[in-house]
Formats: sequence, structure tokens, C-alpha cells
Amino acid sequence: MRIVKIADASPMDILLKDHTILYRKKTPTSAKLFKKSLKLHVNGVSHNIRFYEPYPFVVKNSSKENLVDVDNNKYTDYWMGHWSLILGHGPKPIKNMLSKQISKGWMYGTVNEQTIRLSEIISKAVPVAEKIRYVTSGTEATMYAVRLARSATGKKIIAKIDGGWHGYTSDLLKSVNWPFDESESKGVINEEQIISIPYNNLERSLEILKEHSTELAGVIMEPVLGGGGCIPADVDYMQGIQEFCKKNNSLFILDEIVTGFRFKFGCLYTEMNLDPDIVTLGKIAGGGMAIGIMCGKKEIMNFADTTSKNKSERSYIGGGTFSANPLSMVSGFATLSELKKEKSIYTKINTLGELARKELTKVFDGKVVVTGKGSLFMTHFLKEGVTEIKNSADAARCDSELLRKYHFKMIAKDGIFFLPGKLGAISNAHSKKDVKKLITASETF
Amino acid sequence: MRIVKIADASPMDILLKDHTILYRKKTPTSAKLFKKSLKLHVNGVSHNIRFYEPYPFVVKNSSKENLVDVDNNKYTDYWMGHWSLILGHGPKPIKNMLSKQISKGWMYGTVNEQTIRLSEIISKAVPVAEKIRYVTSGTEATMYAVRLARSATGKKIIAKIDGGWHGYTSDLLKSVNWPFDESESKGVINEEQIISIPYNNLERSLEILKEHSTELAGVIMEPVLGGGGCIPADVDYMQGIQEFCKKNNSLFILDEIVTGFRFKFGCLYTEMNLDPDIVTLGKIAGGGMAIGIMCGKKEIMNFADTTSKNKSERSYIGGGTFSANPLSMVSGFATLSELKKEKSIYTKINTLGELARKELTKVFDGKVVVTGKGSLFMTHFLKEGVTEIKNSADAARCDSELLRKYHFKMIAKDGIFFLPGKLGAISNAHSKKDVKKLITASETF
Repeated sequence: MRIVKIADASPMDILLKDHTILYRKKTPTSAKLFKKSLKLHVNGVSHNIRFYEPYPFVVKNSSKENLVDVDNNKYTDYWMGHWSLILGHGPKPIKNMLSKQISKGWMYGTVNEQTIRLSEIISKAVPVAEKIRYVTSGTEATMYAVRLARSATGKKIIAKIDGGWHGYTSDLLKSVNWPFDESESKGVINEEQIISIPYNNLERSLEILKEHSTELAGVIMEPVLGGGGCIPADVDYMQGIQEFCKKNNSLFILDEIVTGFRFKFGCLYTEMNLDPDIVTLGKIAGGGMAIGIMCGKKEIMNFADTTSKNKSERSYIGGGTFSANPLSMVSGFATLSELKKEKSIYTKINTLGELARKELTKVFDGKVVVTGKGSLFMTHFLKEGVTEIKNSADAARCDSELLRKYHFKMIAKDGIFFLPGKLGAISNAHSKKDVKKLITASETF
Repeated sequence: MRIVKIADASPMDILLKDHTILYRKKTPTSAKLFKKSLKLHVNGVSHNIRFYEPYPFVVKNSSKENLVDVDNNKYTDYWMGHWSLILGHGPKPIKNMLSKQISKGWMYGTVNEQTIRLSEIISKAVPVAEKIRYVTSGTEATMYAVRLARSATGKKIIAKIDGGWHGYTSDLLKSVNWPFDESESKGVINEEQIISIPYNNLERSLEILKEHSTELAGVIMEPVLGGGGCIPADVDYMQGIQEFCKKNNSLFILDEIVTGFRFKFGCLYTEMNLDPDIVTLGKIAGGGMAIGIMCGKKEIMNFADTTSKNKSERSYIGGGTFSANPLSMVSGFATLSELKKEKSIYTKINTLGELARKELTKVFDGKVVVTGKGSLFMTHFLKEGVTEIKNSADAARCDSELLRKYHFKMIAKDGIFFLPGKLGAISNAHSKKDVKKLITASETF
């Protein structure tokens, strides 16, 4: 924890100190357990972003819109399992399906009917999913998408968005965090094969793409930047990039791992009149169980067919021990079936998201921009010179320190959990009451 | 399916035709479902190796040592969920823990006590696991291990074994399948940063490593080649490679995803008096649920600490949505707890493995070498010029076509399942009766 001398401290520092004292008082068991966790794990966690000062609370169980920690503090959860739980924690229909499946076995390592059922529902909802391959994580899905693009085009360069996040694959680990021109990590080796373009700036993006057009295997992007600041893309921007791809024999890859089935039953790209070659899915489509999905047009996906292609022609695409395991498959199927059946879910959560954005904007009168779409939202505390948030560079110039303090205050005082600094997701388990509680908590910040 | 004119056909081709007719007769529902699966998925599967001719059966459920297909055929399973299920399918203690955990939530996206419990048991059993990080798959674990090696040493080249399989990560996709000097895939771009050495040939391996010693970030290898042919390493070989690594400031990385907790409660490296810098685990340690584990010495693992390091110093290591999810954590914990409690499990399955190797060698009198160790075994049908199997090149020169026919015959006729062409794993659910059934089935081949 940062030590702050009271004499030099700003009012915000003093407040943070108060919140930290309060948090420590409320979470003694978490403190003790996290001390153990620090001894056992790098940084105490198994995902960098899950750590926050002074220590993250330790979850005991979850239900509906709530997380409960080991000291029995209850939090209205807006993190929602990395935004994967659109129906809330432990929804009954999924729970029942999972329990039933566990009695029939959770690891077959073979072809199973559960996979076919999930694929049928996806292929109907996502027209471009002419062929599907299940993998174990989003990181794997984007890795394969990029490999497919290189195989299909015979070219090497992949373009991504400044601030775009597609998991930890070595093939896309560049220009993720500000400053975007600085390497993300020691020990990565592909950086010269990745280029990056500014989101929602078509002119500049096309200039950069043109410089590499003869070597460009594909462009990968999210229709709403997730980790990069919860920023929706302009339709014109997406269409412009797609047009460039089609003209230059480069693949247009949409990463809908966050956005797929988030705003409507299907993907966002259909709404934007886009025609991607490959789409990656995950999160919601697995109902919170481990999943990554790569799907796309038949002629592209078929590069992965090892039965008709030899080593040098094929795109060597996984697979893995856990791909299409029956638990992930039934969890995804049950989740999508609920969403298909209850169309009102989207109306409800999109409306609650709209309400959150509107009310938060009002509460922080002029000091914030609340970005997002549908049930996703993120509060950006403006700093001088920033008036709108159109890309990750805008987002990076906002006061992320203040955002984390705001989120931490709600954890410590209000029983509300955002992963500090990250966007919030509303699930079907959330109610108007929850959003009002969030607004009230924001008013007292 | 291959069409064979009876007049030209060898006795083996005629037999295969008979087995195929029999298989089709027994699996009409699988045939129908797989037709659907072919429409929806590349190659009909979500892992290349899960396909075999004429079509793989579709599993309905699993229990103990058995898989049951949708036509109610029952198979004694030696594939055992990619060898992850050392206690068999659906063992009660794991089933109970999973069911209990499902009622408490399956996706927290945060720190949880289940992770700490699993890490405590692993860190005691695997001394080098001074720090642990959970990821979602083995492919991710080896990707991170390689990145860590490059970060820690500031060097780029990674050496692997000819035929060594470490998942689909772009960072290790070279020299996997025979011929080893041919690219594994279109669309991979790291090949010049990967070198490959022949297993169990210390002299030649050291020659190759020496050529790259100044640029060598690390060597990654399995103490028993898994996918590469179920071939144990010579202790001298492993020690020689390790010595080279230590002398040249290169990391020695052991991939124990297959071997960890397979032969004894802990890793194989302790038995070989090895001192690896990083060990990867998976499969058994997750009890069949999605998991990848990277663990190792504190000073190496700490390169991944993002709280004390900036972008250019850190090794950017995941993580992911599903890392350390509570279901995988309790599944792993329950599995390892059983193995720790019931030491007789290892005695039993190692003895059964020994029996299988001995009896299969006898049955195929002089025509095979049965490789393996403990509860893992693989039958290699010898071709002219091959008398022993010391590495993947030896394995590749055996009659893998005949091995697949042998496995397929057992699927079609004997109710025994090996993934055609792959090694077999015995679980605690298997009995001497099962092994005898396998021997009898082999006698009639």
C-alpha cells in the first residue's frame, strides 16, 4: 500500500486512506488468505488484472448479481466473471444442466452430441459461422484466427487496433497498453509482424494499412473495444476497414468474444452490415465455462482441415485436451437457449445500461464521459484536454487512478464490485434497484 | 473411407473392410450425428486427432473405465480424456466436489480459496513450484514458459525435441510431426526462433545446442515423450541437457503436463535428480477440468510480476477469463487429494501398465516394441530396420497405419477404445480384467 503523509495529502488521498482502513477492517479473512496466496502465486493472483491495492478480497461464493467474500461481505457484482455471465451468477437452468452433465462425465476427449447442439444454435444466430471450431480460451481463439489469416493469404502482417485486447497470444501482444509504441513485454518476438492502427480514425488507419497492404494477412478488431475502454466503433470506420481488407486480399477478423450475444441474440457485426471472414467468440457463449470459439466462412475455415491437406498446405489449428468438453458445451447451450427464449432479457439489460450511463453522466456533471453500449458501461474521469472518448488513446489520457479510487471506494463502503479500473457489465440478475444503488454510491464519491 | 478393390486387397485390407462394416452396423446413430457434425465443424471435430475413419463414434456418457456411445456400445477407455483422468471417468469424490462447487458458483473472475488449497498441495509435491500461475490450457502454459525464458535470459532461441508436443502455441509449432524438418503449418511465423534436437541422443543434441548457445533462451522437453510416441527419456540425456542449460545461462523447462502426478505423487523430475527452472503441469492436476499450470523458481517466475515491473521489464503472462476458476481448482484439488491419500493407486496402475507392456510384447512376438512407463503404454509395429524406439524418428518409422488398424479393430469388435494411433493410459478404475480383455483382443488381431 502507498504510504501517504497526512500533511502533504490531498483530500482524495485522505479519503483513500479512510477507505483502505475500512476495507481492512471488513476483510480480515481475505487479508490472511491473500497473504498465503502471495507466497504461492506470482503477484498473489492468476490473472494480473485481478490484483488491486491493498489486496483483493477472496470470494466464498456467488449468486445472482452478488459475490460474497470469505468475511461474508456481499457485493453487487459488475465484473461478472470477466463479463461472461450475462444471466448472473449460478442461474438455475445452467446450474441444472451442469449438474446433470457432471453425473454423465465431464471429460470425454471425443466427439459428443453436446457440441453439435451448441453449434446448431450458434450457426443459426451467427450467419458467418459456416464452420466452427471450439478451443479452450479466447487467447487460443484469436491465436488461431491470426494463423488462419496467414495461412489463407500467404501473407504475414496482422493489423490490430491501438489498445485492442485479444488475450495473451504472442501473435497479438503489441500496442495493448499506453504508450502503444512501447513493447508490452520482455520476451515477445513477433512484434515486427504486428502493426497497429488508431480506432475510429479511418483516414489515419488506412494510411498505415496502405503502407503494408502487400504483406497484410488480416485486420483483427472488436466492434466495441473491451479492455481498451468500452468504446463502440463507428459503423463507417468498421466498413472502411473491411472494404480495405476485401480490396487487398486481407482477412477481416472480428473479435466478438466480449460483444457476441451481449447486445442481442447474435453478433454485433450483423447490425453494422459487416461481412467478416472470421469471428471469434467466447465468454457468454460458454456460460462462464472455459471456451473459445473460432468460426467463419467455409473456404477460410477449411484451411484447418487436416484430412485433405498435408503439412505445408494446412493451417495447424487446435484443439486441445479441453476443447468441446461436454460441460462447456452444455453451459453454452443452456445460456444461449435462455437468451433465445427470453428476448426480453436484452431489452431489460440494455435499458439498465442506458440508465446507468445517463445517471452516472448526470452525477459526475461534466467531469466524466461514460462510454459503452447496451449493458456495458465505463466511467472515464476526464483530464484537461480530453472531451470525448473515441479510442484508447483518449481513454488512456483520462484519470485512471481516480477511476480505481472510485471503484475501490464502492468496494470498501458500498458493497459494489467493479474490478478496479475496468468496465462494468449488467446481467439479467441485476435490477433497477441495483443500478440506483450504484448511482447513490457514485453521488457520495 | 478408402475404397479397396477386393482382388488387389491384402488380407489386412479385407479385415479392415470387415471391421468397417461391423462398425457401421453398430454405430448408426453416431453416423447420423457425425454427418451433422461435419456440416458444422471443420473436419467434424474440435481437435484434429479426434477424427478417424470412417467416422468417430459420438459419446453419450462415461463412467469409471468406460465410454458409452449414442448407440449404447460400451468401450473400455484407454484414451481417458487425453490421459487426464487418472481416477477414471466421474470418480465420486471429484463428482461430489464439483456438484457442491456448482451450487456456489462456477465463475468468480477473482481470487478464491479453492486456488490456494490446490496450490498448497502442488507446492508440497513439486518442490520447484515456488511460485505458481494457473492458466486455461497446456497450450497456454507452454507459451508462457517460453516467454518467461526469453524474458529472464534476454535471449530468443528456444530448443525443443524432435517430435516433442507442447500444444498449439505458435512459439513451439515446429518439428512435431515427421518429417521434422518440414514446416508444421502454413501461417506460422516463429520457426526461425525454434530449434529442435533428437531425443535421447546427447552427443548430437549438444552439438546443435552449442551452435546456438549464445542465443539460447531455454530448452523445453518432456521426461516421457507423450504425443511423440510414449518414450521415456534416459536420465543421462536429461541431465546432460540440463547441465548445458545451466552452463550457458539458458532455462531448463520441463513439460510435465502428461507426466506430472502420472507415475507418483509429484513430478518425474525429482526421480531423475533434475533441477528445472520452470515446470508446466495440466491434465491430471485439473482432474479433467480446463487447466494449465506454470510453476517454477521464484526468481524466474517473478519476471511475471506486473506490480513491481514496468512494461519493458516484465514478462507479460496471463491469465485469462478462466484461469483459476473454482471448478477447475476443486477438481484438481479433489484429484490430488485422492492420489495423496491412496498411495496404492500408483502401485496398482503402474503394475497394470507393466502387465500390459509385458503381455502385449508377448502377444505380438517380435513384431512390436511396447514403449511406455508406469500406466502409460504404446504399441509400435516394427518395420524393417527398426529394432528399438528411443526417439520420435524411430517411432515415425514404425507402421502407424497398422497401429491405427489394430486400434480400430478393437473399437469395432472388442469394445475397447484407444484414440487410433495414440498411446494408452490406465486409470485407477481399470482392473486386471480390463487388461486381460485387451490382451485377448490383441491376440485376435
